[in-house]
Amino acid sequence: MKFEVTILGSSSATPVFNRNPTAQLLNCNEKFYLIDCGEGTQQQLIRFNLKSARIDYIFISHLHGDHYFGLIGLLSSLHLNGRIKPMQIFGPAALLEILEIQFKHSDTTLRYPLEFFPIDPTASTQIFENSDLIVKTIILNHRIPCTGFIFEQKQRQRKLIKDKAEEVPMAYYTVLKKGLNVELPNGDILLSEDYTTPADPPRSYAYCSDTLLDERYFPMIKNCDTLYHEATFMHELLDRANETHHTTALQAGEVAKINHVKKLIIGHFSSRYKTLQMLLEEAQSVFENTELAIEGKTYPL
Amino acid sequence: MKFEVTILGSSSATPVFNRNPTAQLLNCNEKFYLIDCGEGTQQQLIRFNLKSARIDYIFISHLHGDHYFGLIGLLSSLHLNGRIKPMQIFGPAALLEILEIQFKHSDTTLRYPLEFFPIDPTASTQIFENSDLIVKTIILNHRIPCTGFIFEQKQRQRKLIKDKAEEVPMAYYTVLKKGLNVELPNGDILLSEDYTTPADPPRSYAYCSDTLLDERYFPMIKNCDTLYHEATFMHELLDRANETHHTTALQAGEVAKINHVKKLIIGHFSSRYKTLQMLLEEAQSVFENTELAIEGKTYPL
Repeated sequence: MKFEVTILGSSSATPVFNRNPTAQLLNCNEKFYLIDCGEGTQQQLIRFNLKSARIDYIFISHLHGDHYFGLIGLLSSLHLNGRIKPMQIFGPAALLEILEIQFKHSDTTLRYPLEFFPIDPTASTQIFENSDLIVKTIILNHRIPCTGFIFEQKQRQRKLIKDKAEEVPMAYYTVLKKGLNVELPNGDILLSEDYTTPADPPRSYAYCSDTLLDERYFPMIKNCDTLYHEATFMHELLDRANETHHTTALQAGEVAKINHVKKLIIGHFSSRYKTLQMLLEEAQSVFENTELAIEGKTYPL
Repeated sequence: MKFEVTILGSSSATPVFNRNPTAQLLNCNEKFYLIDCGEGTQQQLIRFNLKSARIDYIFISHLHGDHYFGLIGLLSSLHLNGRIKPMQIFGPAALLEILEIQFKHSDTTLRYPLEFFPIDPTASTQIFENSDLIVKTIILNHRIPCTGFIFEQKQRQRKLIKDKAEEVPMAYYTVLKKGLNVELPNGDILLSEDYTTPADPPRSYAYCSDTLLDERYFPMIKNCDTLYHEATFMHELLDRANETHHTTALQAGEVAKINHVKKLIIGHFSSRYKTLQMLLEEAQSVFENTELAIEGKTYPL
């Protein structure tokens, strides 16, 4: 099952020549989840040949513009392009007010249902579940209420061994894949383990957009497979990071290490950094399996 | 005196791969006026190496998102980048409400004064004047209240003939440039026409963003030097143009011809057109001196 994220924007507060503000597209089993939506996200989707029409869920971490100014444009374009299926949006309560005032003054009545789910910024909770995954919030420590998200795959069914499965009627597949044995009418037993192999272990992707390093969110990300963590500054600007409630690349590495994640992706880079290699090296000095969030690049999770 | 416009976006309602929504940057005597501000305008300014910090005046024609969704991001970035000088914004009254709700929820208090001037959508009026030009509104006919703008240069002073001017004291220049003669203490007369040549005639640029062809706006654009006029569709889609309150390329040419403008620039192209040559040819079939609005291109006015 596909579980991967494509970076659409990796810049912090202001865009720079080759970096857009924050947005990511998560593909889980060919369902698409947009995570944050900075200005120009719809253009980035076009640029990378990703179909915005396939997005059914949008998660907005907080109301600093570099994380949501592109949302109204994306929703408007989907409307103009004929969308009729619902869109589910999870974000701060005031986001709905901001969207509605703009729809009102453009005399727009969306052709598709916009289902809005306000996020409680005070406590980590489960906010979404479908057959593939569960999404929970991560309470971050920023200048305004800000939540990260952790996307946890559900336990999958065991996988059929193709050659062996051909020996038995398809009607038994469902039971065998659940790990249960089948008793045939003649009394013979088909053992699940003869016809299936264990499912891939469920994976998890934690997204920490804008935050001070704060131990209080560590329990939510502990042992996750991939952690995206902001790394706005080099550690030499720790004071600036603290002042603006952001994290340094070194700290992002520490968060990954302390919480035993398997892989770290850093992003949300300050516009002062023309190149990013030194941010990568700083994070890797603490946590080796670190990658830079590069726009247009897709990361298996 | 410089009088030119750079196209930042030429697409209609939704962006396409190589076209952004509407925005234009007018340079009049090295003062910068932004006309409309679709999503991604700040990125376009960066892309074309134009300094957003130099913009002091912003004109928004109406509240369809393809004409203003980029404004909040631009204003926010100017704030984050340390702007302190005022910004004057002219637009529909509700625009201020839309901006303020977003500043409020991001806990942003702009470091610079935002001076907002609501536009009366019912009557053409003068809304701006400085030493270089006057701006008046053009009442257009769109689905929601929509105004175009005409930028009229003021009459300039006569130009000194450099070699001749060196013969007389600089103190007389101001009077001579005004076309007045100078009587010297000894009774001699310096004739203005001996020391100066006539000023360039003042030029005008009319901007008609989104509109049905409607004779009622013709008096405002009559005889202007350059007319920017939307040309969303080919004329074969006239019904669609009427339905959506837009204009065809043929109609844009007709508007230019009827009103005896000197040059026509067409833009606001529907996303259905992958290439634009046929739109140009259709407009030129009626009005030959037509150009396409091409992003990044600067047009002398």
